[in-house]
Amino acid sequence: MQIESLDRLINAFSHPPSVGKKTAERYAYFLLTMNEADVKDFADSMVTAKENIHYCKVCANFTDKEVCSICSKPNKEPIICVVKEPKDVMAMEKVRDYAGTYHVLHGVINPLEGKGPNDINIKSLLSRISAEGIKEVIVATNPDVEGEATAIYIANLLKPLGVKVTRIAQGVAMGSELEYTDAVTLSKAISSRREM
Amino acid sequence: MQIESLDRLINAFSHPPSVGKKTAERYAYFLLTMNEADVKDFADSMVTAKENIHYCKVCANFTDKEVCSICSKPNKEPIICVVKEPKDVMAMEKVRDYAGTYHVLHGVINPLEGKGPNDINIKSLLSRISAEGIKEVIVATNPDVEGEATAIYIANLLKPLGVKVTRIAQGVAMGSELEYTDAVTLSKAISSRREM
Repeated sequence: MQIESLDRLINAFSHPPSVGKKTAERYAYFLLTMNEADVKDFADSMVTAKENIHYCKVCANFTDKEVCSICSKPNKEPIICVVKEPKDVMAMEKVRDYAGTYHVLHGVINPLEGKGPNDINIKSLLSRISAEGIKEVIVATNPDVEGEATAIYIANLLKPLGVKVTRIAQGVAMGSELEYTDAVTLSKAISSRREM
Repeated sequence: MQIESLDRLINAFSHPPSVGKKTAERYAYFLLTMNEADVKDFADSMVTAKENIHYCKVCANFTDKEVCSICSKPNKEPIICVVKEPKDVMAMEKVRDYAGTYHVLHGVINPLEGKGPNDINIKSLLSRISAEGIKEVIVATNPDVEGEATAIYIANLLKPLGVKVTRIAQGVAMGSELEYTDAVTLSKAISSRREM
């Protein structure tokens, strides 16, 4: 058909990873069925969000203030939960009984992609320990090779400071079935078993 | 976390059907990792597409001109392929050996949703038959209840005009396996069998 502005729109919608040509086409066609005011509002919400949102200067999570709402909460526990990405904070915040703060690495150590400890947000974590009187650091990176390596690196770095470093538990997921659980996970679940 | 502009962005990304909260969050977070120029370009591509693209005054497919590139092609065969939506035209155009034009209904007859023949783009199809000297109309609505009903309605409407009305064949999909084909499709494939 060759409509230049449509091709450009489809191309723009293909930016996010996991969005293929087909899905981008669906989004573009859907957008054309929306009324003009809604499309302008959609476009404006993108520009506004990008302009207003930046990293919290304490934990590096997304925020529209200088310090994010979690870091500026009063009476927070002296615990930091270290995560890979801002969306992990959102996931963790659904857990109601955590009252500490976060530290967003914006990546993990990944030698294959040439990413070392200096390429992720680790340095500022060190200064937070004493500045905020932190008692415990929970490393909540993903339970994959890079996440594990990053967790070990952080543990070795922080232990000399006398802070307790813990790792989120790995085992069978709640509601899952043993039959369909992979062997590595089962093995972790057995070695980390606890008395009832 | 409560970042107003982020919530607004996530909400905007949830507009298209089939995009849930989780997917919209992923898109929003991805957008925040893009640089500001790319975000502005993405936003601009949406507004530009919406402003420039409208319905072709002949076939009602999307176009940025008065008459779309397919309708304005020279030497086209006097055949019209009737489809439900603009994206169906895109699918049909991948079939290289079709040299006719299209007619986009922008919906199908669906009594349950209160959609009758006057709510879709059928009227202008009638006037095209004589104006363009059409010899055949292929009804390529989807092979579901509404698509079939719409096809029958169109056939009854057009036959008195002396035009040949055909329906795309229904049967087993190429590359599929009989084992996994549903009974209705198999039944159609048998009743429409042809001599080899």
